[in-house]
Amino acid sequence: MTPNIPETTKKRVVIIGAGFGGLKIARDLADSEDFQIVLIDKNNYHQFQPLFYQVATAGLEPSAISFPLRLAFHYYKDVHVRITEVTELRTDSQEIITQLGAISYDYLILAIGADTNFFGQKNIQEKALPMKSVGEALGLRNRLLENFENALVSDSDDVRQGLMTVVVVGGGPTGVEVSGTLAEMKRHVLPKDYPELDFDLMKVYIVESGGELLGPMSKNAQIKSKEYLEQLGVNVFLNTRVTDFDGKYAYLNNGEKIRTNNLVWAAGIKANFIEGLNPEILARGGRIKVNRYNQIEGHQNIFAIGDVAFMTEDAYPNGHPQVAQPAIQQGKLLSKNLPRLLRGNPLEEFTYKDLGSMATVGRNLAVVDLPFWRFQGFFAWLTWMFVHLMSIVGVKNRLLIFINWLWNYVTYDQSLRLIIKQKSPKAED
Amino acid sequence: MTPNIPETTKKRVVIIGAGFGGLKIARDLADSEDFQIVLIDKNNYHQFQPLFYQVATAGLEPSAISFPLRLAFHYYKDVHVRITEVTELRTDSQEIITQLGAISYDYLILAIGADTNFFGQKNIQEKALPMKSVGEALGLRNRLLENFENALVSDSDDVRQGLMTVVVVGGGPTGVEVSGTLAEMKRHVLPKDYPELDFDLMKVYIVESGGELLGPMSKNAQIKSKEYLEQLGVNVFLNTRVTDFDGKYAYLNNGEKIRTNNLVWAAGIKANFIEGLNPEILARGGRIKVNRYNQIEGHQNIFAIGDVAFMTEDAYPNGHPQVAQPAIQQGKLLSKNLPRLLRGNPLEEFTYKDLGSMATVGRNLAVVDLPFWRFQGFFAWLTWMFVHLMSIVGVKNRLLIFINWLWNYVTYDQSLRLIIKQKSPKAED
Repeated sequence: MTPNIPETTKKRVVIIGAGFGGLKIARDLADSEDFQIVLIDKNNYHQFQPLFYQVATAGLEPSAISFPLRLAFHYYKDVHVRITEVTELRTDSQEIITQLGAISYDYLILAIGADTNFFGQKNIQEKALPMKSVGEALGLRNRLLENFENALVSDSDDVRQGLMTVVVVGGGPTGVEVSGTLAEMKRHVLPKDYPELDFDLMKVYIVESGGELLGPMSKNAQIKSKEYLEQLGVNVFLNTRVTDFDGKYAYLNNGEKIRTNNLVWAAGIKANFIEGLNPEILARGGRIKVNRYNQIEGHQNIFAIGDVAFMTEDAYPNGHPQVAQPAIQQGKLLSKNLPRLLRGNPLEEFTYKDLGSMATVGRNLAVVDLPFWRFQGFFAWLTWMFVHLMSIVGVKNRLLIFINWLWNYVTYDQSLRLIIKQKSPKAED
Repeated sequence: MTPNIPETTKKRVVIIGAGFGGLKIARDLADSEDFQIVLIDKNNYHQFQPLFYQVATAGLEPSAISFPLRLAFHYYKDVHVRITEVTELRTDSQEIITQLGAISYDYLILAIGADTNFFGQKNIQEKALPMKSVGEALGLRNRLLENFENALVSDSDDVRQGLMTVVVVGGGPTGVEVSGTLAEMKRHVLPKDYPELDFDLMKVYIVESGGELLGPMSKNAQIKSKEYLEQLGVNVFLNTRVTDFDGKYAYLNNGEKIRTNNLVWAAGIKANFIEGLNPEILARGGRIKVNRYNQIEGHQNIFAIGDVAFMTEDAYPNGHPQVAQPAIQQGKLLSKNLPRLLRGNPLEEFTYKDLGSMATVGRNLAVVDLPFWRFQGFFAWLTWMFVHLMSIVGVKNRLLIFINWLWNYVTYDQSLRLIIKQKSPKAED
């Protein structure tokens, strides 16, 4: 195997990662006269992370929130997408090592994002269900559905309780959204699918180590989201940590244990790392320190953007929130700065424009913090849907998600509770 | 584990298999006062087999052609769906043995369908790609897409040719449909996804041992489907058999070999078998001999319907075609005969009503044989779409497939070329 990137007289920009930031800059530079673009990702699609939880709870199909990278660049001849993993960074020789071989770069953009942080807890890492990729969300969905099938044919209520109960760790948007949706499924859908099961055995917990849910949001949002979750029947544990999980019990730091086979881990993320990066330039959470042009320390031609980048501004002394907007905005600015850098012109400094944040708890229930307006409830829920629908990549995906949501709303049912697994023989080399 | 089927004073009907036949009879008997229904399947969904090829060629999502069994029986309290495999049939004690344990029956309906027949060819069985389940169709899709990624980073044209070329074995509807669709992808979609690849290296073959494609259809349909396929660039080999496949070459009985890593096997099916069935009552292709009431030889209360059943009529001395219609019609009649049998009333004999057959080759190209009318081309293609759309289970699936087809037709692109794989830790027992 060989990367087979065509030789070029242009400068080559290698982008690692096709998340919000990487895809943004690749698209903005796609028809550049100055640059050849090489876009590298492990998957052949861009993933819309904010809706992973709906895949996990059988509300949407994986394909609805995934967009094929090759389709995004149909009309750009000098964008080269390669599906591979990067194993090493060699700054001396200006190349990256991938499973396909070495690829040299003139400019390198690390848009490698973040992954689940288990904070070194081995048992949890091994047995908990993370939700940081479409594949993991699908794995979580299949697990939950298989559990209900198993509960149906189990001979003890203790086993049934373990199979049916879900403990969600982490009170951020993902934790709030997944626990809220599970609670709604318990009310509207699952008892119809399994009329033979006793749903008193099914409990949904959300466990948050801090004193409130949705930590970075407004007080109103924090209070309302807790109120909404409790209204839906979720057991909200604040100031509580899960200290261990053996696949049958989740152990809490207050000495209690909860009988559950399902620990959904949404408690934290850590930035991804590539061998060859100087560990001294890493900040908290493994993020790479960058200046206001997203350049990493010690290199004019290497940039980090999005979740993996640690940039401080006066308003953000601890770095930007690790969500879509900083990544998109940094990608956009960098696509303008690169030609300037090439021509020796002065670069523009990045300033984060906070467009607000939001989370949905359930049917008609959401919380929205806009810069000058904070609101909750039905209108917040409509706003949440509209913003997410407009942010998704691809007109067809937008249309299909809209129809799914409308369908779900009217019928109280997603009708996607399918345990589908790929089956195929091994390929020859 | 235990099946946990509630005790009942009603008679228990156990249906094995939720394909066209099994689902039909389960639905028709769902609100019966006489019977308790136990429906057993390996999957928690009904699969719409006629569109597997569109899943395999990234035209539809698996979920669009799968319908959750539990959703189908939301409003029926005495229908018990169990997801398990049946390992043995014990007619003496009137019970079946499943992975969950034994389930007794008063009436047993074998709707276990058919699977790929490799005719004892071990190499082919091990390395060829079958297409008899949603899971296998998804496996085929992922394989084809991965191949193109690999072709892009290969360093030899020989390897590329192997990766890009597909040999489809079997000239029935599935073979015709999958080879036609692949040829269209070669024309419209793949070169846009992979502008760096030389598509002269990609060949699509269809290899049929008989003298024509679509054997059971009309002469016109046979001739036209061949013409259409050749028009799309498919290499049609008639009177030819694939005798071996080593993962790199397909060997033909005429001494030729074709460089391909992808052998799609649609050359034949064999009826599924359950341990405990008397092998003496099996007919050609492993089908179970039944009388005109679908009763298997030697048992008044055991029935076989659909692909697995071998029933002869004057018009069908070799049994009915192994397609959806006989299964549905037999399921329907049997749901009326069972109450008669229970009450000692005379049963109605089954007579197959041939509603016609059809196959689609590509955009605007299809062949249709109705009992009194045979036609091909654009109108046949519209007919094919209408009939399949109306046959699919679930209004939402119908709507989503319609939108997908419309989208594909207008854009020449399915935008589903995603290699998505489930990722999850192992569950505790």
